[in-house]
Amino acid sequence: MNSFTFQCGTKMIFGKGAEKGAGSELKAFGAHQVLLVYGGQSIKKSGLYGRVCDAMRESGLSWLDLPGVVPNPRVSLVRKGIELCRENGVDFLLAVGGGSVIDTCKAISFGVFYEGDVWDLVVHKAEPGTQRLPVATILTLPAAGSEESDSCVISDETLHIKGGFGSPLMRPVFSILNPELTYTLPPYQTACGCMDIMAHAMERYFSQTKHVEVTDRMGEAMMKVIIHNLPLALADPCNEAARSEIMLAGTWAQNDMTGTGREQDWFNHGLEHQISGFYDIAHGAGLAISFPAWMRFASTRSECVDKLAQYAVRVWGAEMNFEDPRETALEGVRRLSALIREAGLPTTLHEAGIGAERFEEMADNLTANGTTTCGAFCRMTKQDILELLRSMA
Amino acid sequence: MNSFTFQCGTKMIFGKGAEKGAGSELKAFGAHQVLLVYGGQSIKKSGLYGRVCDAMRESGLSWLDLPGVVPNPRVSLVRKGIELCRENGVDFLLAVGGGSVIDTCKAISFGVFYEGDVWDLVVHKAEPGTQRLPVATILTLPAAGSEESDSCVISDETLHIKGGFGSPLMRPVFSILNPELTYTLPPYQTACGCMDIMAHAMERYFSQTKHVEVTDRMGEAMMKVIIHNLPLALADPCNEAARSEIMLAGTWAQNDMTGTGREQDWFNHGLEHQISGFYDIAHGAGLAISFPAWMRFASTRSECVDKLAQYAVRVWGAEMNFEDPRETALEGVRRLSALIREAGLPTTLHEAGIGAERFEEMADNLTANGTTTCGAFCRMTKQDILELLRSMA
Repeated sequence: MNSFTFQCGTKMIFGKGAEKGAGSELKAFGAHQVLLVYGGQSIKKSGLYGRVCDAMRESGLSWLDLPGVVPNPRVSLVRKGIELCRENGVDFLLAVGGGSVIDTCKAISFGVFYEGDVWDLVVHKAEPGTQRLPVATILTLPAAGSEESDSCVISDETLHIKGGFGSPLMRPVFSILNPELTYTLPPYQTACGCMDIMAHAMERYFSQTKHVEVTDRMGEAMMKVIIHNLPLALADPCNEAARSEIMLAGTWAQNDMTGTGREQDWFNHGLEHQISGFYDIAHGAGLAISFPAWMRFASTRSECVDKLAQYAVRVWGAEMNFEDPRETALEGVRRLSALIREAGLPTTLHEAGIGAERFEEMADNLTANGTTTCGAFCRMTKQDILELLRSMA
Repeated sequence: MNSFTFQCGTKMIFGKGAEKGAGSELKAFGAHQVLLVYGGQSIKKSGLYGRVCDAMRESGLSWLDLPGVVPNPRVSLVRKGIELCRENGVDFLLAVGGGSVIDTCKAISFGVFYEGDVWDLVVHKAEPGTQRLPVATILTLPAAGSEESDSCVISDETLHIKGGFGSPLMRPVFSILNPELTYTLPPYQTACGCMDIMAHAMERYFSQTKHVEVTDRMGEAMMKVIIHNLPLALADPCNEAARSEIMLAGTWAQNDMTGTGREQDWFNHGLEHQISGFYDIAHGAGLAISFPAWMRFASTRSECVDKLAQYAVRVWGAEMNFEDPRETALEGVRRLSALIREAGLPTTLHEAGIGAERFEEMADNLTANGTTTCGAFCRMTKQDILELLRSMA
């Protein structure tokens, strides 16, 4: 176990109808003038928008709307939000939605206090300061884990670049987690979200750091919960227990508890950002394609095979083949692939309509034109990445 | 899963030598005049006291000492601490020690702002206010989990009463967790601490609330970590990995993450407080005696046997007997008892030098003279408690 610091002070307010408390919580946390950020019409159709507005009205708060957040959220809307905050004396941001909405709020919250263009923060030309507007969330999509995390991902839709930044001050001050709000998620979004949650646990789980038993077992807990509950939520979208377990696992898989004291990997997120940067597919779908292929690739490395076998045995209940641990590792990959297929997610780039034309460019981007390696659990050269991409085709 | 709110903002600073950062952390959190609270001479002999004082001196802090905290910490010392704080303008409390030292600080921190006698807070004659001095900790004994928890336990040594109170504001602002500081713990204290950690996980795990998979599996993670690492730490007190895992599990088993969304039990803690109130035995030793006996008792209840079997299978790796789940439940109890015996802890009241003379009084105290029941997972009448106590003799 490595040395670490960890702090996550986000207040979780979990349960049916919890959004009714949004107004009083905002008030208790000092809000007066709120920027209410969301995506499209779905929160209006569902009645959620009305309930949140009622709650704010009852608490004597005023607010402005910033709708229009799209998946792979855009810096143009972040810029618009910053302007709105500055012009109207906004002192609190409320995200109602999933990771894209929350990440938009997070970027706005720091951008308001940064004099230059907020894109500088996203691409690390400048560091976020110590001032930010507080952010609260009402989560409607368990996936990104942004409701407790200390980072955000933003895209420039004109440059086709995804970037991200973080700060210990970026964690939301409170997050309202009502599993009922996820009953209306379509199966594909439910599956993509669960794949993202699994990936957050796996990016941390696959580590060369030894003696990380507490966090390994907690990561296994999150993964097993998704494996058990995703099929239940797909079979019955209003299964309260399954939706609750997925929501809670999604939050705790990404607040970095399970990543403390260890080197983390994040190669698959990096690769997926390349894929979805070029092709605009759902993040969870990209991860569904890359992770099993990457595991198969890593299982050929002597330094990776034991942890992959542990994953197969402890997460998937595979039987350990003591004569051939790689065979056990591959059994874990087979079981993961089966879940992905059953959930209706793509398992190859071809299925997602993606050809080989950008492979070279992606591998170059991840390795500074082949001059560096990337990944931590399994170091990847440009040639390794090309081989991996071909195996995903 | 039930509705819940959860918030734990304690900053964890984990790793070898972490106490060297105590001064700069205190300063960053706004300390000027610190009350340094500890037990006896051991932190002076080990050099820890000197390192902490050096760190505070280098950060320009001044401080006063309050030594003399004993196990089952006493309200008389809390009163003395409150007086010291008021007379000397103390603005921060630093606990260097285990749960008793931290709990003393927590009680002082609220007592300073309470006009009456602090014992009123302990016995719930008055509620803690919204003002408190911030508390930080340097942990030397993984056991009570007070380094992140929101409660404290204090004893009146003249009345032989143990009481406790809590507040969301009671969680320490930061806790320094250096596993090296636990290398010198004697085997008995190591074992008692681990039994306390197991108990914190079990008091939450044994619940009648259904669909609590995330938190069940996280609790199982903490328990499995203790089961694996306690024997390693006893065999080699300087085993860094084992000491680290125990320290981290101890903190997270009691910050109430694993207790969210469920009814908790705490009967065994209540019973143990009776036992150690009358006989002043170590808290972990009392729990080692009560928990297996209570599990055996609970296994006769139809509403309890399935969860006890789950515990046996998932925590202890027992094989499920589908024809006779109670047999599986009892196998879990046998394995827990074996660990307790191997760790050198008592398994009967007799071994701890305790007779039957106070059984009636204990059962009366827990049930308001037999007029109420206690416990949640397994409801206990006065007669049940007497039967249980006789089985522990």
